Amino acid sequence: MARVVVDVMPKAEILDPQGQAIVGALGRLGFSGIADVRQGKRFELDLDGDVDDVTLERIASELLANTVIEDFVVSRVDS
Amino acid sequence: MARVVVDVMPKAEILDPQGQAIVGALGRLGFSGIADVRQGKRFELDLDGDVDDVTLERIASELLANTVIEDFVVSRVDS
Repeated sequence: MARVVVDVMPKAEILDPQGQAIVGALGRLGFSGIADVRQGKRFELDLDGDVDDVTLERIASELLANTVIEDFVVSRVDS
Repeated sequence: MARVVVDVMPKAEILDPQGQAIVGALGRLGFSGIADVRQGKRFELDLDGDVDDVTLERIASELLANTVIEDFVVSRVDS
């Protein structure tokens, strides 16, 4: 079965309070060397038919990502 | 600056209601050919020092993932 991964991340110019909270927690827990963390979403789609790239882009942009504040990357992977 | 990506996904045996909601929405929106969707998290860490693999595994397992219900993968990427 074909698998598609859609990675959705906050745009670079958008504040990411969840990522900043993790940076703070890392410091309090004694982990050093991490300058920045950004948190996004990962979607794994299992295809049971042929779905073309245009349709996958539409699914990502219309349903999975909020393109006002998020960027997305669609990639086909072997599963 | 080195970048590390941590992908966190619900374990296969764990129900994923968010993913199931997306499967339902895809059907209602007229997209076909998607058998299953699972939703997880993606963390992008920017390192400003040397952080060894053992430390990265600890960060992922202690802070980023709930290893009772989630699996994680740590990968170093070029940025």
